[in-house]
Amino acid sequence: MTGERDAITVLSDHESWDLLKSAALGRLVTHIGDQLEIFPVNFVTQGHTVLFRTAEGTKLFSTVMSDKVLFEVDDHTVAEGWSVIIRGTAHVLSSSDEIHEADRAQLLPWVATEKLRYVRITPDELSGRRFVFGPEPERGPYPS
Amino acid sequence: MTGERDAITVLSDHESWDLLKSAALGRLVTHIGDQLEIFPVNFVTQGHTVLFRTAEGTKLFSTVMSDKVLFEVDDHTVAEGWSVIIRGTAHVLSSSDEIHEADRAQLLPWVATEKLRYVRITPDELSGRRFVFGPEPERGPYPS
Repeated sequence: MTGERDAITVLSDHESWDLLKSAALGRLVTHIGDQLEIFPVNFVTQGHTVLFRTAEGTKLFSTVMSDKVLFEVDDHTVAEGWSVIIRGTAHVLSSSDEIHEADRAQLLPWVATEKLRYVRITPDELSGRRFVFGPEPERGPYPS
Repeated sequence: MTGERDAITVLSDHESWDLLKSAALGRLVTHIGDQLEIFPVNFVTQGHTVLFRTAEGTKLFSTVMSDKVLFEVDDHTVAEGWSVIIRGTAHVLSSSDEIHEADRAQLLPWVATEKLRYVRITPDELSGRRFVFGPEPERGPYPS
């Protein structure tokens, strides 16, 4: 208790998953060698994993299996914002059991395309932060 | 004129910059070797560049000068979304002329921190897309 608010607060895993569940749009970051790529994707959480869909033949599909990925979700108001970042492994679902399980998540497609494949991201690390905007956070009359 | 709407529309550079100007929160993607990093940042455009601030000693500050960067901004409603991606070079401003020019952009800091340094991203490539959500875009009674 210092009577001051930190500008950045570290979120618990529980808070981070709750925020992930509240959102629909995230960003997948991949790379092939030195070439960075970022893709906005419509997603849902299922357990402590992230599910999205993409079409075969897309750049996303060709890079998602290349290596470890990042997945980022954020939101903000004028007063504050939050960001949750997953560092993990992406896996294109191929077995009927995997696909059946993913179907239960009722994920809507991001855009109208055919031949959609499920991708599941399994986290190795989860990191959530809440940010207070402005040059100085407002303080109440009493330290709290 | 095909009578069908594509689910993904490529935006002109002009449209992409207009959308960048309408937003305040973007995401910087960097890497050091195989380690990908993504950072939400509060930004403004100035000319055809992107300006944001960060504190010395942060992970962002240590990675932003490492190589080419990506910068992504998006927004969405229930009906559609857009995403603009810049591939470019980040440069920490050091000369008083550079800093004076950046001051004119009236950028608000993302969080309350000290020793903020300006970073300017100069694009090599700009790519904007508009997405229509849903399994099938709605069509009017007449092809348009």
